[in-house]
Amino acid sequence: MYRTHNNGALRAEHINETVTLAGWVQKSRDKGFMIWLDLRDRYGITQLIFDEERTPKDVMDLAKTLGREFVIQVTGKVIERESKNAKMATGDVELLVEKLEVLNQAKTPPFTIEDTTDGGEDLRMKYRYLDIRRNPVKEKLIFRHKVSIAVRNYLSEQGFIEVETPYLIKSTPEGARDFVVPSRMNEGQFYALPQSPQTFKQLLMVGGMDKYFQIVKCFRDEDLRADRQPEFTQIDCEMAFVEQEDILNIFEGLTKHLLKEVVGFEIENFPRMTYDEAMAKYGNDKPDIRFGMEFGELNTVAQHKEFKVFNDAELVVGIAVPGGASYTRKEIDKLIDWVKRPQVGALGMVYVKCNEDGSFKSSVDKFYDQEDLTKWAEATGAQPGDLICVLSGEAFKTRTQLSALRMELATQLGLRKSDEFAPLWVVDFPLLEWDEETERYHAMHHPFTSPKPGQMELLNTNPGDVKANAYDLVLNGNEIGGGSIRIHDKETQSKMFDYLGFTKEEAQAQFGFLMDAFQYGAPPHGGLAFGLDRLVAILGGQETIRDFIAFPKNNAGRDVMIDAPAKIDEEQLKELNLKITL
Amino acid sequence: MYRTHNNGALRAEHINETVTLAGWVQKSRDKGFMIWLDLRDRYGITQLIFDEERTPKDVMDLAKTLGREFVIQVTGKVIERESKNAKMATGDVELLVEKLEVLNQAKTPPFTIEDTTDGGEDLRMKYRYLDIRRNPVKEKLIFRHKVSIAVRNYLSEQGFIEVETPYLIKSTPEGARDFVVPSRMNEGQFYALPQSPQTFKQLLMVGGMDKYFQIVKCFRDEDLRADRQPEFTQIDCEMAFVEQEDILNIFEGLTKHLLKEVVGFEIENFPRMTYDEAMAKYGNDKPDIRFGMEFGELNTVAQHKEFKVFNDAELVVGIAVPGGASYTRKEIDKLIDWVKRPQVGALGMVYVKCNEDGSFKSSVDKFYDQEDLTKWAEATGAQPGDLICVLSGEAFKTRTQLSALRMELATQLGLRKSDEFAPLWVVDFPLLEWDEETERYHAMHHPFTSPKPGQMELLNTNPGDVKANAYDLVLNGNEIGGGSIRIHDKETQSKMFDYLGFTKEEAQAQFGFLMDAFQYGAPPHGGLAFGLDRLVAILGGQETIRDFIAFPKNNAGRDVMIDAPAKIDEEQLKELNLKITL
Repeated sequence: MYRTHNNGALRAEHINETVTLAGWVQKSRDKGFMIWLDLRDRYGITQLIFDEERTPKDVMDLAKTLGREFVIQVTGKVIERESKNAKMATGDVELLVEKLEVLNQAKTPPFTIEDTTDGGEDLRMKYRYLDIRRNPVKEKLIFRHKVSIAVRNYLSEQGFIEVETPYLIKSTPEGARDFVVPSRMNEGQFYALPQSPQTFKQLLMVGGMDKYFQIVKCFRDEDLRADRQPEFTQIDCEMAFVEQEDILNIFEGLTKHLLKEVVGFEIENFPRMTYDEAMAKYGNDKPDIRFGMEFGELNTVAQHKEFKVFNDAELVVGIAVPGGASYTRKEIDKLIDWVKRPQVGALGMVYVKCNEDGSFKSSVDKFYDQEDLTKWAEATGAQPGDLICVLSGEAFKTRTQLSALRMELATQLGLRKSDEFAPLWVVDFPLLEWDEETERYHAMHHPFTSPKPGQMELLNTNPGDVKANAYDLVLNGNEIGGGSIRIHDKETQSKMFDYLGFTKEEAQAQFGFLMDAFQYGAPPHGGLAFGLDRLVAILGGQETIRDFIAFPKNNAGRDVMIDAPAKIDEEQLKELNLKITL
Repeated sequence: MYRTHNNGALRAEHINETVTLAGWVQKSRDKGFMIWLDLRDRYGITQLIFDEERTPKDVMDLAKTLGREFVIQVTGKVIERESKNAKMATGDVELLVEKLEVLNQAKTPPFTIEDTTDGGEDLRMKYRYLDIRRNPVKEKLIFRHKVSIAVRNYLSEQGFIEVETPYLIKSTPEGARDFVVPSRMNEGQFYALPQSPQTFKQLLMVGGMDKYFQIVKCFRDEDLRADRQPEFTQIDCEMAFVEQEDILNIFEGLTKHLLKEVVGFEIENFPRMTYDEAMAKYGNDKPDIRFGMEFGELNTVAQHKEFKVFNDAELVVGIAVPGGASYTRKEIDKLIDWVKRPQVGALGMVYVKCNEDGSFKSSVDKFYDQEDLTKWAEATGAQPGDLICVLSGEAFKTRTQLSALRMELATQLGLRKSDEFAPLWVVDFPLLEWDEETERYHAMHHPFTSPKPGQMELLNTNPGDVKANAYDLVLNGNEIGGGSIRIHDKETQSKMFDYLGFTKEEAQAQFGFLMDAFQYGAPPHGGLAFGLDRLVAILGGQETIRDFIAFPKNNAGRDVMIDAPAKIDEEQLKELNLKITL
């Protein structure tokens, strides 16, 4: 036995017991006649003491050779500490060492193994096993485990069955690009890694499983960008004989349970908002509602005056910045520069200072009098002391720009608190969205989403207006889950593929198995999938996703620790039954 | 809301309530003036009744059009059943239907959706979603879920953290062949899918996670054979600061917990047996000990007589078949033919009938007298009424042949009961095994397994004798788990790779990250992995693995339902940044 206790276990009640501990040398303080050493493991730190008078000489000598991160085993007596440390769980005691064994030596780590480290991200990724020894990283992985097991137990208690779906499936050119896997046994053929278990969970509903879930890895070979992983984890759920309302209730219950269990946050029923409302109020289909700053539309009150920019605009829209009237000219110029950055793309910004005395001072005083500006203040909800920021232009773009500004200002003002949680449901998403590049409509959620009852006919006349029973769960400005009620009959599914530009043959070749299944008694069904990586990150305080993944890939999709992907040898290539020339 | 209750819910207490149910038409009996219909869902069956006198005419007419597997929704009053069915949970009541809606029609299923079906395996795989509607299949998937969640909760309570390890890793030419995944972003480079998370869990131990587990998919691109899946699920575990004893205790605890929780079977401590003992007693490193028939070695008592076959043999070994003395000549000939089949490979079989009167009648009476045969009976533990079967030849082969015969006889005698569970630990496995093909020693478990303390030197003199702290958990003649204490220092690991024929460069290129990690304070560690597919199958009554997998692949590695793997289009191939010619 390597240890009788772990390093977080010893208390005053253990005084005078002889115990054995093992762990890593966190640090040691050598006073010559006495050495104090912090011994660390996953569970905590225990202070060891080596004392010239009480510790055997050979042990004392060996203790002097120990470096940081050496792995040691010690036996000794638990004694009361002279200067107790109330901040440490084991701070009442220390271990007077009698025996010491070095289980493994350690080279000097490339960065300090402490809560705050001097290691840059690249270095910490390369030595991820050392990074994981640091409390903040270790705690995040443990937190992720707690979230996962809470999800599983909650759903299991609600009658959901976790069913494993296959990883080696068939490539479909819909959506993001698939990772493909050449098959050795079937010449010239490929498996694909799933982007989600969507079709399989629908087949499980056809199969009568009634309530399915799975915490499952999914894969997307997309162009990488910051904090997006080519492999990611999904909490995937599906239910039969349900309407949207049933699904929202179940997963609102799950989310409340998680907030309560893992972060101790209790919350009432989640607000619901239509997609159109979210876009109008926040310019965003995943609004952060931890703070206000709702949009005020100013078309009626700002157009038909002399200001051409507004008159020509499809939309004039503003937000009130709390306390912003005190911004200096320089601060306001900085905001204007911010919205004009290419990433935001506004051409300019009009502003109105709402003075404490009730008067207004704007950048467009030439065109608008105090009475006009009073109406602006009303529309945006601005109070004396606030600053109104106004953007204008094409409606969708302007909303998106103002949404970016709203988020930026909230960050600056400290309104996005990581220990506050503001979930909401965004419902009634459009079925389709226009794609500039291919110049056609695409499925906004996916091609299995059902239009709202009676809206199928609109497809041919006003496709952009067709709404779906599709919903997102938004938490603190992030989409953490999304789903829909699905199509469950072959005819509708076939029409949908047709509308989305699939030929009959393509649709049959790729999704024939699903449409065939629909002919054998498919029940009405729908579901939802949570992005576990993001959910965990937000519950854990909104840090980057990568922090909560044990072995993440970098922004180029590489695991720098194991150096993957890598070249493979000629023999392996030959065996793939593919003529591949590198 | 599609339903107020599921089809397993209604009881006498619901009589007179108006309820809504939904589900599949299991069968209907139309008596003209009255129709009885069984409505099925995951939870059970409820009998519906349509009655000319009490059911509206349009509903009655519609009911007559319903076919098997139609999906319907009904509303009506719960009434007491005239002829109660004690075998059905809902057998006290039936639903007098007032409203009926057809939610979806169904084509006639290609096989009957009943506990015993007329569908062959291929057909059931092609229409797996219909197969899953059948109770035996559905129950197996639910059973698998119960095992998984019981494993997770047990290990979680023991302080294990489930950590997700990556699926897109690096190919290593060790062990079985990897599935590889071309990387679009890194020209000419490949990820590999993991055969197990072995190196990652070891890195987690270096990272101080202390106790890790994961239920995780693994992949092996091996030549397929019956009931082996290219993707399979593992319960993967690792612990730091442990010796073999600690690991056996923890996972014996887990296995006992599963036996108790999911199959209601309680059991004392598991027996332990060394590999050498298992081979000597059962000719097998995963003996089925639900029954006896242990091997009796007969060299001392059967050699040095006139029988040349035995005198020339390295090993003469027999088993006693309970009650086998009554076998006819024909039955015994059949056994002899059985051991001579190429799959078993024995050249012949000697037998001894142990008559009830204490006398013996053998096929080698010419060479052995009653006194000799008495000794054979003693060595094999044969009782009056038994049959002793004796094989001889090269030791390992002969043991393997007799083991096959032992299993076959036990099956014939009904000694392998599916509701009995006989686990045991097989320990002290050899570190290496000789590979005829490559004419060198290979790691028996894997190259990360540590030799027993002090045995490293034997590597150069008697490599076949080196034992490892490697252990298998065996249940009913199946290896359900296996593991070892690992090497945790760079020097030993490096020597091991060297011994196994890796050049320094190969070892560094493939496992450098692990050996580097060992230099930064790796703790002693070890672990174990269970094959979840097999574990679930055995706990569930020893049927084929495939039955417990929702969407299995066939023996050729194909998913016939979705028709994968498949060809992919030219565009996709081009984008892979590989010059691939099919």
